[in-house]
Order: sequence, then C-alpha cells, then structure tokens
Amino acid sequence: MSGNTYGKLFTVTTFGESHGVALGAIVDGCPPGLELTEADIQIDLDRRKPGTSRYTTQRREEDAVKILSGVFEGKTTGTPIGMLIENTDQRSKDYSNIKDQFRPAHADYTYMQKYGVRDYRGGGRSSARETAMRVAAGSIAKKYLKDFHGIEVRGYLSQLGPIKIESVDWDQVHQNPFFCPDASKVPEMESFMQALNKEGDSIGAKITVVATNVPPGLGEPIFDRLDAEIAHALMSINAVKGVEIGEGFGCVAQRGSQHRDEMTPEGFLSNNAGGILGGISSGQDIIANLALKPTSSLHIPGRSVDVHGNAVEVITKGRHDPCVGIRATPIAEAMLALVLMDHLLRQRGQNGAVKHSVPVIPASVK
Amino acid sequence: MSGNTYGKLFTVTTFGESHGVALGAIVDGCPPGLELTEADIQIDLDRRKPGTSRYTTQRREEDAVKILSGVFEGKTTGTPIGMLIENTDQRSKDYSNIKDQFRPAHADYTYMQKYGVRDYRGGGRSSARETAMRVAAGSIAKKYLKDFHGIEVRGYLSQLGPIKIESVDWDQVHQNPFFCPDASKVPEMESFMQALNKEGDSIGAKITVVATNVPPGLGEPIFDRLDAEIAHALMSINAVKGVEIGEGFGCVAQRGSQHRDEMTPEGFLSNNAGGILGGISSGQDIIANLALKPTSSLHIPGRSVDVHGNAVEVITKGRHDPCVGIRATPIAEAMLALVLMDHLLRQRGQNGAVKHSVPVIPASVK
Amino acid sequence: MSGNTYGKLFTVTTFGESHGVALGAIVDGCPPGLELTEADIQIDLDRRKPGTSRYTTQRREEDAVKILSGVFEGKTTGTPIGMLIENTDQRSKDYSNIKDQFRPAHADYTYMQKYGVRDYRGGGRSSARETAMRVAAGSIAKKYLKDFHGIEVRGYLSQLGPIKIESVDWDQVHQNPFFCPDASKVPEMESFMQALNKEGDSIGAKITVVATNVPPGLGEPIFDRLDAEIAHALMSINAVKGVEIGEGFGCVAQRGSQHRDEMTPEGFLSNNAGGILGGISSGQDIIANLALKPTSSLHIPGRSVDVHGNAVEVITKGRHDPCVGIRATPIAEAMLALVLMDHLLRQRGQNGAVKHSVPVIPASVK
Amino acid sequence: MSGNTYGKLFTVTTFGESHGVALGAIVDGCPPGLELTEADIQIDLDRRKPGTSRYTTQRREEDAVKILSGVFEGKTTGTPIGMLIENTDQRSKDYSNIKDQFRPAHADYTYMQKYGVRDYRGGGRSSARETAMRVAAGSIAKKYLKDFHGIEVRGYLSQLGPIKIESVDWDQVHQNPFFCPDASKVPEMESFMQALNKEGDSIGAKITVVATNVPPGLGEPIFDRLDAEIAHALMSINAVKGVEIGEGFGCVAQRGSQHRDEMTPEGFLSNNAGGILGGISSGQDIIANLALKPTSSLHIPGRSVDVHGNAVEVITKGRHDPCVGIRATPIAEAMLALVLMDHLLRQRGQNGAVKHSVPVIPASVK
Repeated sequence: MSGNTYGKLFTVTTFGESHGVALGAIVDGCPPGLELTEADIQIDLDRRKPGTSRYTTQRREEDAVKILSGVFEGKTTGTPIGMLIENTDQRSKDYSNIKDQFRPAHADYTYMQKYGVRDYRGGGRSSARETAMRVAAGSIAKKYLKDFHGIEVRGYLSQLGPIKIESVDWDQVHQNPFFCPDASKVPEMESFMQALNKEGDSIGAKITVVATNVPPGLGEPIFDRLDAEIAHALMSINAVKGVEIGEGFGCVAQRGSQHRDEMTPEGFLSNNAGGILGGISSGQDIIANLALKPTSSLHIPGRSVDVHGNAVEVITKGRHDPCVGIRATPIAEAMLALVLMDHLLRQRGQNGAVKHSVPVIPASVK
Repeated sequence: MSGNTYGKLFTVTTFGESHGVALGAIVDGCPPGLELTEADIQIDLDRRKPGTSRYTTQRREEDAVKILSGVFEGKTTGTPIGMLIENTDQRSKDYSNIKDQFRPAHADYTYMQKYGVRDYRGGGRSSARETAMRVAAGSIAKKYLKDFHGIEVRGYLSQLGPIKIESVDWDQVHQNPFFCPDASKVPEMESFMQALNKEGDSIGAKITVVATNVPPGLGEPIFDRLDAEIAHALMSINAVKGVEIGEGFGCVAQRGSQHRDEMTPEGFLSNNAGGILGGISSGQDIIANLALKPTSSLHIPGRSVDVHGNAVEVITKGRHDPCVGIRATPIAEAMLALVLMDHLLRQRGQNGAVKHSVPVIPASVK
Repeated sequence: MSGNTYGKLFTVTTFGESHGVALGAIVDGCPPGLELTEADIQIDLDRRKPGTSRYTTQRREEDAVKILSGVFEGKTTGTPIGMLIENTDQRSKDYSNIKDQFRPAHADYTYMQKYGVRDYRGGGRSSARETAMRVAAGSIAKKYLKDFHGIEVRGYLSQLGPIKIESVDWDQVHQNPFFCPDASKVPEMESFMQALNKEGDSIGAKITVVATNVPPGLGEPIFDRLDAEIAHALMSINAVKGVEIGEGFGCVAQRGSQHRDEMTPEGFLSNNAGGILGGISSGQDIIANLALKPTSSLHIPGRSVDVHGNAVEVITKGRHDPCVGIRATPIAEAMLALVLMDHLLRQRGQNGAVKHSVPVIPASVK
Repeated sequence: MSGNTYGKLFTVTTFGESHGVALGAIVDGCPPGLELTEADIQIDLDRRKPGTSRYTTQRREEDAVKILSGVFEGKTTGTPIGMLIENTDQRSKDYSNIKDQFRPAHADYTYMQKYGVRDYRGGGRSSARETAMRVAAGSIAKKYLKDFHGIEVRGYLSQLGPIKIESVDWDQVHQNPFFCPDASKVPEMESFMQALNKEGDSIGAKITVVATNVPPGLGEPIFDRLDAEIAHALMSINAVKGVEIGEGFGCVAQRGSQHRDEMTPEGFLSNNAGGILGGISSGQDIIANLALKPTSSLHIPGRSVDVHGNAVEVITKGRHDPCVGIRATPIAEAMLALVLMDHLLRQRGQNGAVKHSVPVIPASVK
C-alpha cells in the first residue's frame, strides 16, 4: 500500500492538495446499517475548521462535505463511502517568491528529494489541510463506535507551551477556542497567544485523547498491537513528534510495584497502562498523549537554501496557525477512532465466534 | 494482515511461544545479492540473549539461529528467508498455580478476553522471547542498509530509572551490560540494580536509537510517514509506552523560532526534527527515543483476579529481567532497521526512476 | 484491505453507485513526472461509454472525468490522483416494482445476503457502471507503461456467441462497434445482434488482451505470480467467468513437447506460455483471454423470488447491453495495465538495484 | 506484500527451496479453538506426496509436517501456527550441467532476469515442491470450514490429456492414483500414461474443485470478488494456465435465457454461475475448473540457450511427473479452502453483526 490509506478492514484513503480543486476520501469496509448524514460529519469538520477564532489561521474554508456514495436511504450500505470537500478559498496568489525556496522545518525540501517535484501552492499535499478528510472519516468511525458499542472518543488540549492544565472538566472543552478542559487556564492561554502573535513566533502543544467503554480484546498482540497502531495513527498527524500511552515516558522512572495496575473483582485499581496490556485493550480507558511541534511558518526570518543550493533568507507572510496544536484535538480523536474501528472489525473477523467464560473486570473501582 | 507481519515490501512474519517447540520468522522481499550467513545474524541475537549478566534474567537460551532458505552460495536469492531458533530451555515446569491466575500488568487477562484461551507457559506468545526473531530479521535489514547504502543503525540506553546519561560515547555502549554510552554512569546503574534486586522490584528505562547516513526522500507523506512507521515499530516492542522523534515531547514547550532547523548550503544548523520533515527523511540523523515500562513480574505480591473472577494474590517466582530496558537496545535497533529497509524499497518502487536536480544539504555543518 | 482497492504499490480505490451522485477513484503510488491531462483519460472512457452504437445500452452518460489532485503543471507529482465522474443521467425513476425482487443471475440476492441491505437503483454498486473508474485508472497506468517503458496494452473481441474471429488486424479494432479485429466477421456480428435484440435475449463473448514489449522479470513467483494477478484482475470484471493465459485450457490436451516454448539466441520459437514462466514475465507478449457471460437483464420473463421468499416472475425493462462483452475490451485493457504497472513498481522496489549479466532473448524470432 | 503471503485475515506465508534445508509456513489469523494435530495435516500432505504411484515422480519425500507453535493442548490459540517439513531427500547431486542452462518452459530464465541469481538445485523455489506448504495450510482451513460451518471442499481430475470424465462419483476419487471420479476411465488413463512414459513426453490435465454448503454472502463485490480471488489462488499454482468459474468459457456461446440460474422458493433451478453472483457466494455449490500445462521436464531434447546467450540442447534426466495435474487435486482444494476461509473471516469482520431478514434459497431443488 502506498501511504495514503489507513486501516486494514475499515480503511480510509485520501487525496487532495491545499490549493487544488478538492479534497476527498474513500472510507471502505464500513459495516452496513449505520445511520449517517452529511450533518453528522460536518460537526467534527466544523470543530477543526480554520478561522473560528483569533488564535487560528484566518484562512476561511467552509469545509462543506458531500457524501457521494455508500449511503442509501439514510444508512450505510457496506459499499465504499466517497466524500468530497471542494476548495473554495483558492486565492489566485503569486507563489513566485517561494516556489524555489525551502522553508525551514517544512516538507518543501524533503518532497523535492523524494519526488523531484512538488506542488508549492500552500504546501500542497503536505499542508495540514489534508487532515480535514481524516476528521471526516474519523467521524464515521466515531459514530459507529458510539451507536453500536457505546464507545466514546474524546480529546482535549493538555498543555500549551509552558501552560499545563491541572484538571479535566469535559464540559469545558468546547467552551473555549483551545479545547482546554481546565477553565482556570484559559485566560493565561489567551494572554500567551496574544504575546506570541505580536512576536510572530509559534508554540508547541500537547493533546490528550481518551476512549471510554472500549471492550477488552481489541488489538493484535505482536506488530499490530493496539498501542503500536495508535502510535502510528497519531504520529502520522502533521507536526506530531511524540506519542505516549498511559503513563508514557513517566514509566521510565517508575518501579514495577508502582506501575502495575492491580486488579480486583470490583475493578482495576489504577490505569498506568492506559487501557492496553500486551497490545490488547483491557477494558480500561484508552489514554494517549501526543506532542505537537510549533508551527514553522513564522514572521521571523530564518536561514535556508533554494533549489539551486544557494543560501536564502525565508520569511512567511500571510495566514498561519501560531499553534497547530489548537486545532489538532478533533484530528487526534479521528485517528484514535479509526484505529479502534479497524480493530473492532479485525477482532470480529478472527475471534467473532469466540465464547468467553472469563468475567470482565470493571474499568475502575467505583 | 493479521498482526504477526511487519512491513510492506520488506516483510517479517514471526511465530513462536516462549515455551513452545521453536521460534521462527520469514523475511520476505529481501533483495538478492546480499552476503549473509548465520553468523551475521547471531551477533545481534547474542547481544539480546538473556543470561549474559547478573542484571538480566538467568534463563539460558542459546538462541542459535538456523537459516532454512533464501540464501544460496552465501548470498540472498530474493526468495523468502526462513529462520528458526529452537527452544532448548523448556523446563518441564508445573504451571498449575498460575494457569488460572491473571498477573497484573501482564497480557494474561487480555489474551483470555481476546481469544478465550491462552498458552500460559512462560507467557506464551506474549513473552518478550518473541523479540528474538525481530532481532534476527532486523540484522538482515541492518546488513543490507550498511552494505548497500552505508546506513548505520545503532542504539543505547539513555536513562535507567532515575539515572540519566549525560554524554554519548558510542565506543562505551558495548563495554558494559547496560548498553550505556556514558561510562561515568555505569557504577551508579550497577548499585541501583543491586538494590532493586534485593527489593524484588523492577524499573523502567529509556532507549535512544539513531540511524546515520540515511538518504533524504524515505517515507510516505500521509499515513505512512517515516516517523509514524517508526512509532508503530518501536511501540510494538513489549513494554514500550512512549515514542519520540527528535525533540519529541520537548517540542511542547518550544517556540517555532527555536525548533525549526535552519538550513545552509554547508548543512543543517540543528536537528530538533530528528531527521524527518513532513514524514520524509531529510538526510539528517534519524533519532528516536522509547520509554519502557518496568517489568511486571515482581517478587512483591500483588492483588489480582483469577479466571473465575475471584480475588487472588499473585507473586512471581523464578527468573525475570528486573529491567526489560536493559536488553531492549538490539530490539529497538532491529525495528528501526526494518522500517528503513521497507521504506528504502518503497521509495525505489515509486520514485526509483526519479532524476534529482536538487542538491543534497549535508546532515550538519562540520 | 476491503475489496475496493486494487494493487500493492500502484493502487486504485473506487467508489460509486450506478444512480448515486458520482463515481470516483483514487490512484495512489503513481510515479512523479508523468505528463497527464483529463483528455488522456477521457479517450479510454469514451471507448467504454454506453450509447455509442445500437448494440450497447442506450443510457447516455457523458462520463466526463475530472482530475482533482496529484497533477501539477501538467505532470503527476507522486501524490494521490483523485478523479471524479458525476452521474448526469440519474432519471427519477420508479423502482417500486424491482426493489423487493431478486433478478436471476444478478447480484441482488447476494448483496442482500451479505449486507442485509442494498441500493436497488440500477444495480447500485454491482452495476457495470463501476468499471468506468477502472478504465480511468487503467488509462494512467497505460500511459506510464507506454511513455516510460514502451509497453503497449491492447485488446479485442475474439468471439461473440458462436462467431469466432479468424485473424487479427489491430487496425480494424476501432473501425467497428465490436472491437473486432477481423473485418470479415463484422457483418455476421451485426446480423446476430439484431436478431438477438428482437428476441430480447443476450449473448456471451470472449475478449483477448495483449501486452507487448513487457520486460522480463515482472511478477512474484509464488502467490502473486504475474498470471495469478492477471487472473484476479480480469476475473474481477463484472460478468467474467473464465480467464486463460496463453494456451489456457488448450494446454489440457497438449503434450509437453508441443507446449514448451523453445528458446534460441534469435528468440523464442513459440508462445504457448502467453509470456509468463514460473509466474514471471519472459519478455514475450503477454496474452490473456476472458470469457464474459451473457447479460442477465432480459426482456424474456424469468422465475425468481422476492425478499419475502415468494415466487415471482421477473422481466427487465429499459436500456441494457445485450452483450456486455462488446464494451468490455477497454476494461480488460485497463485491468491488465494496472497489474503490469503494479508489478513494474514492485520489481523496481525489490530488484531495482540488480545488475543483469544474462542476455535478453527476443520475444520471437523475426 | 511481497508475494509469498496469501490472504488478508487468514494468511499463509511460505518459504523453502526444493533442495534446501526445509520448507515452512506460517498460518496467521486462525481463529482459536480449532482442534488440530499434525495428523490432521498429514492426511492431505500424503495425498499430494510424490512417489505414491508409478504415474508420479519417484522422488521420495516423507513430507512429515511438524507444528511448531499456535496449538496448545490440542487446540489453536489464535496465535500464528508455524509448520515445518524437513527435506530428507537432498541427494548430493552434480548440477554442473544444468546450472548454466535455461530449460525451456521452466522458470530458470525468468528467475535469472528477475533476481540476477537463482538456486538451480532442483528448480529451487520454483519447484512444485513449494506447494506442500500450501496443502498443509489449506488443510487447516478445510478443517475449520468443516468443523465450524459444515463447508466441504473437494476436487477431482476432470480431464487427462484427451480423456474426459463422463460422470462424477465422489467415492471413486480416492480409489485410483489419478483422483479420477469416473472409474470407467481409469484403465484408459493408465494405458495413456504408460505410452507417454515410454515416449518421454508429458501431458496436460484439467482439475475441478467444488465447495459445498458455503453460506451466501462471502466475497467482496469489486476487486476482491470471490471468483476473482479463487482465480488468483488457483492460477498461482504451478503449471496452471486457465481458471473457470461455473460454466466458464462455455458462457461465451450461451444466451442469457439459458445462462441465468432461475430461482424458486424451493431452490435454484441450475448452477451456471458456479455459486457466485456479483462476486458474492449465493449458497450454491462453488465450482471451479483449472487447466494445467504438461510438465516441461522431458526426456525429449529441446532447443534452448545458456546464461551466456549461446544455443544449447537441453534434456531432462531423472525423476519427474509426466503429468503434474495428477497430484494437483489436493493443491487446488487447499487453495480454494484458503480463499473461503479468508472471506469467511472478512465477512464476519465487516458484516458479522448484520441481521438478515431475507430467507435463504436452497442451493438446488431437491
């Protein structure tokens, strides 16, 4: 497979450049009978949409999704679901100054080394705009997981630069433009972002995604461990440089007696594992963190080279996110949902006929 | 694919249980013409082998690998390479006390929930013993990368519990049983491990793997980004709970002006990216960290449940690694090599005929 | 993978129902640098298009393809190529009489058994209309094979019901609506089809596809033999019930001394193998035949059942191909081209660095 | 994937050369709970084994299979099943006369063109000996299909050179060395083979495989149609040059009114489709034919070339099957079983939760 497809049984294949005609995706393998409308998908797309606050790029895209196939009389039919988002904001812009330059920390240079050519308009395929179709596909997975299995996939911003959240109130997540679950941190984030904008700089962020009510047994125990696939899926999001499951890097300094999540008939006593043991879901909440690097499109000049190998100074003008992490929560949710959906079907395929005599341990002691 | 295969073009499929007849692997897609003997593979297997120091399990396995196919007159032929390691230390042990119990933080419970059955002898398929075949397969990839492209894949222990290394001297890595590149930390590690053994506890660790001389252009820019595949491969190793590329979670608090690796005709000025931009190798060193949780087999009793749902107290007897991280360096190297090998072939497949006019920027300014 | 994707490195994923909003495809893995316009693709689509003669369905679809991504400044970029064909002839038709019936020899019954639901409008996903996107994707493969390797993929109708061609003149193929390479048979075919139309019946056909100038070495020798993949690809076309390579079923009565294609330095002396030995291309012409069943949409009533299990009489009204084989030649060419393209990239991936000392034997003695 | 693996969910990966150390396979994705012993597999291996009659090669291989993993306490565990057959008859032979020659109609020349090297001992990987592991893997699939779903996969020789069977008595198939279901034809086959042996020539054959009691709904409707996958699987067997489903090439001359299998509440009235409609099983018997070319290893000299491009005369000495078709029945059964097993799991994965309201039509009117 050639890298624009994710999944084994529930697969998503995407296409589209930032300033091309349209973005699209094909979701294949979706079980039949799921109630699905464009509005269901649009909700998540709107959460990711640029231009919704002063802290994100001011590029305005409606990101209106159309379902082209695979849904009949309001329900999925089991055949592939084609989706399309037309690019409406393709400004007829002059790219002559950037087409021969490589912006530092962008994919410009590596695309040229890989393909010998690149679509330089707005980053082309390497633009974060590509993630719109991930969100669209993920929203289908989320809906199936919720409707058929009660699984919920949610996320929040857990750190913005130096500002760490100290509490999680799910109700707060959609009350501010940062997806921040700790209302007490929002003013600080606002000030921080305003200062940053003035400087023309950008900042990194950390996102946490959580899946609740996941049945035990999902995941393949060797190379396709559930955590390995989650790491793959999350690390494949633009700008992500690190992924943790459960305690993550905190495990390095933990002792075994501290890390191991003891079990009782009333439930697990802790969740350092982040809901996955031996690559297989345990029934506890699946918890993952991802680190996003600061945007590389800055108003501060940087040293670089051009296609001829000459030294140049690069400065980015125009509309850019000063913190890509801010809009990344719906993308991370989408990717986690895609992994779970795929493994739900894989589990059903191999072990669907299995009769379990082992009782299920509650996710945690109430 | 069903989870025991890794790779798209250069694939590894493994089988084998900890206390079964044998472990084996099939490496498929290896280019012809690589000089290969069993001795080449044995070197890496011996580095991973248990029982080599007092800080690892005292289980003694020769781990002698046999090549069964795919090599003719000392060279690979392009056909699949079958490999076998017989299990020689299958003690006829009494498992009656653990067969109905779930050890906390092990895969016992999740295997039962997935399959409805499990091979309880020594952890069965979930044992870290499975990684022997990863090391064997990885050594073939490492040799091809080295012989044909001069790419080198190496790793070291960068943190043992609270003890962080402060310098990297590659020559030191094989001078101590920890794969520690900082000789000054070795005595501290020794004392720490001795104390830990007395307490019957275990500890986490951090490993760093580095690939040098990687050509720019490897990786698929969307779902199969090179960093996403590395995250997948490393997170698929037993006990790994976190993966970072380059600065990793350090990016969260970085500013864009600080993170972006500026480029000059003389070379990149820094390597926060860890050698990957937009999911594609940049020609800089590829650097990844992985966090390993502390072993869960402890001499300290823990609360758990049995297959009937009753509360039980579990205590592990016998031979176990107090820090799985110590032997994990060769495994991490193997997985990184497998990813690079696969993407080298994928790149050749799609873009092998590409003529590049863009000059290559040196990995760093000398 | 979930069945709507073909290929390993050069992949095609399609979506779309006969009477849905649109048909689409994503071609992934295409090498960069191929000159490509919508007109290049439209040529093959027009060859497959319905309504071009009185011997095919009178449904009129423009089948105008749009390229949505992956092409920049007239050349492919290496990123996925999104393509779309809008359905313009979605007559607002009354389906109430067929929605609860299963037409004999159609996919109605099996779709219901598989998915529990189906889009009954015009056959939905099971309609031959789906093959339009195969033709579009195949035309990209054909162009790359031709432009970069001089490989040509062509086909013709070799039998229409009882009428077998007796000679192959490639110049004749496009001079008649049957893709018949033997001009002397065309009047007979015309009379036959006219009689058939009057009776409301349909007829089977045989198509032959040929690839010339294929380099030796393409194909994987075990499960993904080049012939096995061609069989897969051709048998996946609607209505195909048989595939032959070279002599095909003629081999059953052949002796080894007769079948084996002897080789001389001046070339192969015969081509019973159809250009493939041990699953790998030999450099001779690749030749395959496919058998297409007669259309099942007849004006002659047939016995069937409805969704409740009751006996019903079914009769098809409206526009249908009396011989699906007539329009199948471009589809068969497309599928053969997709197989060759995929294996060209696979061969480059694994063996791209191979230096050959063995001289190439000419395809045939001149 | 690199061509030595078959299947998506139930996968088989094989290795091994004709005169190497051993043959092996890994069966991955097998559901847990299947009762399985080496004896279950050995039955089918013995049916394929050479040297069982005077009409097959006199090479004697015990083909004794060992199960190395994936089975515990007599049942599959869901983890990969490793299997091994050691090569016991590796005669220390002098290959100097054939190592530089290409035998006509063999894979010698194409392997060299693909890989630049080949293992010339007994055909290496291209030897039909490779099919032993297909039979071993297939026997696991056959057992699961039978034990859990009552599906039976069987085959017979339907034509030997000019001799066609005229009736099918399943009880006869194992009463003669030809797998011939028509006892009246056996003496004719014996005479024919004896004459052929004297001449040093070989002959083609046709095999028919049938699966009964297959539930409706298996297969993916576009590229991975059940018939397309069967064609792939059967065409991937050494020497196969043609595959038919149901009426196959007979469809070319059929009319629609004759071909369509009418349905009644009491059952289907005919089975021209061979049990597959729109790529999905209908519940009728799945019927496929395969054509096998005559063996190319003849005692009659043939013209060829050597590795330097010089003309040579080639003659095969030693032990060879004069009709590869004779031993091909168990191989064809194995491949059909693998396809069905894979699609059974795929169907369960996507549509396992589907509730069907549509009644099942009996396979045929009793």
